[in-house]
Amino acid sequence: MRMYDIIHKKRLGGVLDKEEIEFFVEEYTNGKIPDYQASALAMAIMFVGMTDAETAYLTLAMAKSGNTVDLSEFGTLSVDKHSTGGVGDKTTLIVAPIVASLGAKVAKMSGRGLGHTGGTVDKLESIEGYKTSLSINEFMSQVRNVGISVIGQSENLAPCDKKLYALRDVTATVESIPLITSSIMSKKIAAGTHSIVVDVKYGSGAFMKTPEDAEILGRKMVDIGKACGRRMAALITDMDTPLGDAIGNALEVKEAISVLRGEKHGDLREVCEALAANMISLSLGVDIKESEKKVKDAIESRLAYKKFIEWISAQGGDVTLIENPSLFPSSKIECEVKSSISGYISRMDTEKIGLSSVILGAGREKKDDTIDMSSGIILFKKTGDFVSSGDTIAKLYTSDIKKAESAEKLFLSSLSFTDQKPAEKPLIYKIIR
Amino acid sequence: MRMYDIIHKKRLGGVLDKEEIEFFVEEYTNGKIPDYQASALAMAIMFVGMTDAETAYLTLAMAKSGNTVDLSEFGTLSVDKHSTGGVGDKTTLIVAPIVASLGAKVAKMSGRGLGHTGGTVDKLESIEGYKTSLSINEFMSQVRNVGISVIGQSENLAPCDKKLYALRDVTATVESIPLITSSIMSKKIAAGTHSIVVDVKYGSGAFMKTPEDAEILGRKMVDIGKACGRRMAALITDMDTPLGDAIGNALEVKEAISVLRGEKHGDLREVCEALAANMISLSLGVDIKESEKKVKDAIESRLAYKKFIEWISAQGGDVTLIENPSLFPSSKIECEVKSSISGYISRMDTEKIGLSSVILGAGREKKDDTIDMSSGIILFKKTGDFVSSGDTIAKLYTSDIKKAESAEKLFLSSLSFTDQKPAEKPLIYKIIR
Repeated sequence: MRMYDIIHKKRLGGVLDKEEIEFFVEEYTNGKIPDYQASALAMAIMFVGMTDAETAYLTLAMAKSGNTVDLSEFGTLSVDKHSTGGVGDKTTLIVAPIVASLGAKVAKMSGRGLGHTGGTVDKLESIEGYKTSLSINEFMSQVRNVGISVIGQSENLAPCDKKLYALRDVTATVESIPLITSSIMSKKIAAGTHSIVVDVKYGSGAFMKTPEDAEILGRKMVDIGKACGRRMAALITDMDTPLGDAIGNALEVKEAISVLRGEKHGDLREVCEALAANMISLSLGVDIKESEKKVKDAIESRLAYKKFIEWISAQGGDVTLIENPSLFPSSKIECEVKSSISGYISRMDTEKIGLSSVILGAGREKKDDTIDMSSGIILFKKTGDFVSSGDTIAKLYTSDIKKAESAEKLFLSSLSFTDQKPAEKPLIYKIIR
Repeated sequence: MRMYDIIHKKRLGGVLDKEEIEFFVEEYTNGKIPDYQASALAMAIMFVGMTDAETAYLTLAMAKSGNTVDLSEFGTLSVDKHSTGGVGDKTTLIVAPIVASLGAKVAKMSGRGLGHTGGTVDKLESIEGYKTSLSINEFMSQVRNVGISVIGQSENLAPCDKKLYALRDVTATVESIPLITSSIMSKKIAAGTHSIVVDVKYGSGAFMKTPEDAEILGRKMVDIGKACGRRMAALITDMDTPLGDAIGNALEVKEAISVLRGEKHGDLREVCEALAANMISLSLGVDIKESEKKVKDAIESRLAYKKFIEWISAQGGDVTLIENPSLFPSSKIECEVKSSISGYISRMDTEKIGLSSVILGAGREKKDDTIDMSSGIILFKKTGDFVSSGDTIAKLYTSDIKKAESAEKLFLSSLSFTDQKPAEKPLIYKIIR
């Protein structure tokens, strides 16, 4: 078999078979197929596409290209949630303890933040002592006993996807639904989870700009996950506005705690409830209405909050911070962003808001940047709110006044105003099962 | 400027501007743009295409990527012929002395053979003493004094094309009309010639399989050459059958000599006359009918043959071989291929015939293979001829009986027979000016 013939076949509009896809994945992973052939194939796929069968073969082959986690002992109970990335998205911190408190098993490997979106592992590291790296035995035993463990993604999880994604990123071949799907799903399949809920974000802070595009991606992920033998659901949710009010690692953990304590309502809780209900419905095989009730009860009864403390404690985190969030280290500088305009906020360019938080120190521009855990943004006003001139729209937290000034400028440039209250959009556009 | 944006723009169907194309060519030549980005761009061009303006910018930028030859002292008189490659194509050996004997100037850099097609430089090297490598001063002075010099292609002629072509060859991105055009024309532009006749072959032994496809390529080359300020013509000629009867280096030189002596008529002479007439018409600015007459006269009067001897002698070749071709070294083994079938030859798979000659030692499978100058094939029958069972169809020349056996098998498998005489096809399908 020759890579040349595989590229040529795809270029002519052909459908690759299982053996061809497995050959590509194996030989690309071990370096025998060079990047220049892989990028040519990726570009041909951009134009020709891939069938569901091809996408499933690619997903499974990439999943098998490195280490895999065996969660078969948990059966369908092992459940995961994957977000396509957003700003202020701390849902994992909330939904994991909810579903674990109801008997599901969350054995999750999570990523770090890059660019305008944050990462769950970074957020958890803002809790003093939390270990994001465990041996596989420690990880499995914690899942067995506590019901949750969230650790950093193994270097060798779907290494072919890692290599291919890095290549696509520099060759303008990212925006392909089958390639995005196989990239995400290969990691999920390698991580071993049986029931998977995908949160596909759309809007100014998301990769997919329209709900229609997000729905196409969501449907494809559901189809491919099912073809790989998984239970699947996808939620298409709004990321035209940051989710919740906090952006930045410790700030987001504190917001998650207030949701878990039942103190905080609003968009963040609504999305978390929907995600958790779908995770419960899939993994426990329970009707969705009943799952929704179970989820609400888990929050109101504080069962989920207790599970959160149990999880953080088991993984070495300082629980006194959870019990008393005011003990989280505070930032050197706090700076209020005031409006010079009166009117309704009609739009927040959420990617810009995410980048403002990166400037403040809450994220990374490049992989090796370090994060200032206490920095970030708290929003006082969001899309649809009325603002009078002089009102505080947000508060910025950072270590350096210059960073605050430059972040404030970018933040303000992200806002649009109108005289009339803008029409409300549904937070959850669609649920696909 | 970023290569990523250039790939992205083309992928979305955009038209690249001069600066973007020059940036790509410059940075790819000097190694700053990696192969994996260049192959992604090439694949996007396969699908999106390039406008004539883009193709001309690419051609000129690649022409300027290395050394260029200044033939301006000869004005429009400097003329070249380029063939897209065929089997038994020894036309350069014949047309160069014809047009030089009529006052045109042939300063030609030629390639070596690879795969099923031969190269002019290899053919010339079968003449003992012929120097395929001259200093630029020797080269120019010979063109001034004799009117012809043919040398091997400089390593640094259009190096960007060389690099890009090698990459396209392994990434299934060769078959793009604008990319093929700019590849060929960039070398011609760098070589400095003012008047260019392109011989676009079609058929089983050519890159283009149909006359229609060959015409599209020919028209594009004429348009792009004109856009680069050159006088242009293209002939679309048949390569469904080898050209002439000889395939193999010394064998082809001997056939060329017999045409130049006016002894041999047929397809080879017909194509050579048409090519030479167009070269004369372009470079001397003479009406095509008058050019045709001049060309016939140059052969009949033996002016062209004398010019051939003058050329070979000036470049160090042993002229006694030309004057007495039986002195060319002969091969160890001669083997007759006899037909076991009676009927008309309806088709010769000319690529297979070219590959048979490679097996005999007349060409290269890989770049570093050495050539056996005396080996090759003489055809006694060609498409349209009637063959009785037991007739000799061809004679194979080689150094090793095993090679002869395996070449004979492949040669015979290239032939198809019918009961009825097949319809004759025109040798020259179209002339584009």
